[in-house]
Amino acid sequence: MKIEGRNAVLELLKTDKTVDKLLLQKGAEGSLGRIFAMAREKKIRVQFVDERALARESETGRHQGAIAYVSDYEYAELAALFAGERGSRFVILCDGVEDVHNLGSILRVAECAGADGVVIPKNKSAQVTGAVVRISEGAANHVRVARVPGINHAIDALQKEGFWVYGLEADGEPLYGCDLTGDIALVVGGEDGGLAALTRKKCDKVLSLPLCGKVNSLNASVALGIAAYEALRQRR
Amino acid sequence: MKIEGRNAVLELLKTDKTVDKLLLQKGAEGSLGRIFAMAREKKIRVQFVDERALARESETGRHQGAIAYVSDYEYAELAALFAGERGSRFVILCDGVEDVHNLGSILRVAECAGADGVVIPKNKSAQVTGAVVRISEGAANHVRVARVPGINHAIDALQKEGFWVYGLEADGEPLYGCDLTGDIALVVGGEDGGLAALTRKKCDKVLSLPLCGKVNSLNASVALGIAAYEALRQRR
Repeated sequence: MKIEGRNAVLELLKTDKTVDKLLLQKGAEGSLGRIFAMAREKKIRVQFVDERALARESETGRHQGAIAYVSDYEYAELAALFAGERGSRFVILCDGVEDVHNLGSILRVAECAGADGVVIPKNKSAQVTGAVVRISEGAANHVRVARVPGINHAIDALQKEGFWVYGLEADGEPLYGCDLTGDIALVVGGEDGGLAALTRKKCDKVLSLPLCGKVNSLNASVALGIAAYEALRQRR
Repeated sequence: MKIEGRNAVLELLKTDKTVDKLLLQKGAEGSLGRIFAMAREKKIRVQFVDERALARESETGRHQGAIAYVSDYEYAELAALFAGERGSRFVILCDGVEDVHNLGSILRVAECAGADGVVIPKNKSAQVTGAVVRISEGAANHVRVARVPGINHAIDALQKEGFWVYGLEADGEPLYGCDLTGDIALVVGGEDGGLAALTRKKCDKVLSLPLCGKVNSLNASVALGIAAYEALRQRR
């Protein structure tokens, strides 16, 4: 897998993940110089190449002079997301998020709001590709992502572990006024259909954001960000 | 300007904007049928064309069978954003948001959180193009956007009008704990540099979200969404 872009590569180098090779644009300076210094310290093989070679290797077209080669994304076991301290665990589930921008942005929210991890299904969902890692500004390298055959099974497992599972969608109870402390999971739906009917039914509660205008919904990652930070505000 | 995509066109038809022409894919059904019914009611000229013709006309590649032609986006006067009820006015300012996805998503936040409008600068900023309207899911047709020569002048005008102006950036005071009632403006920075130094200085306060992880920031529209909804929560 290729990790592209300065921030994404920088965040990658801060982790203990194995980097097979690093391509940097000739005449490294600024944050590229910082990347080079970190890579040298970690004894990573660095090749300086010209812009044409980078453009040829780039999958996203936005390499900013840095492309790192790593093994495919290592998904976590679902159980690893339960390993935190009881009573303050916080998990995010994606139910059919197919847009890579949304998934990348959700991983960023998960990391910044201090979630224990993110669950995605194997099918009908964006996967953690190099593009998602770049869009997540490297958050994908820090936050645990578990990939499961189906979201509903994961909800069962979470509820068995004592989590309260809250779906985010219109026509639910008001988000403000709901107690979001304790072990909780937030389920965010896909760009088009929202939560699947069975998933919605399985949730302990469906929560909704107040909507003032005529347009009927927020972007999935923005809605999740608002709910995750309301949880964080209550839990601090 | 072309407005593309089912949701964006549907939202456009709900406004009183003049639609010069509407292209629909032959064999209209589902939400296309609804668009056709609304267009007929409003006596808009509709042409049914095949997919190839739509693909040729599409600027975004995501027309979903519907392309509407309208005059260029009509920006509002800055003063129109002050016209709301004193003591409950809420304006959003963009300081160098260059990514069309972010601007579209910010317009959606503004609409959903009930803001009086959004201010963007003429230079070094994404403008309200057809792509932005589509990404905003039509919110751009409802929310007022004022385009100004410079953000700092707009901040002066807001402060003169009695607004408290809050910049959103790292290294500020905690967002939670700040009183966000009354006439307020939130200033969101660009994807790369954040707030300009002078803009930051002009703000009455700089507010920061708590960040739990190793990645140092949220996407601009997600950060704005969180702050705008915290304001909404306090103001309800």
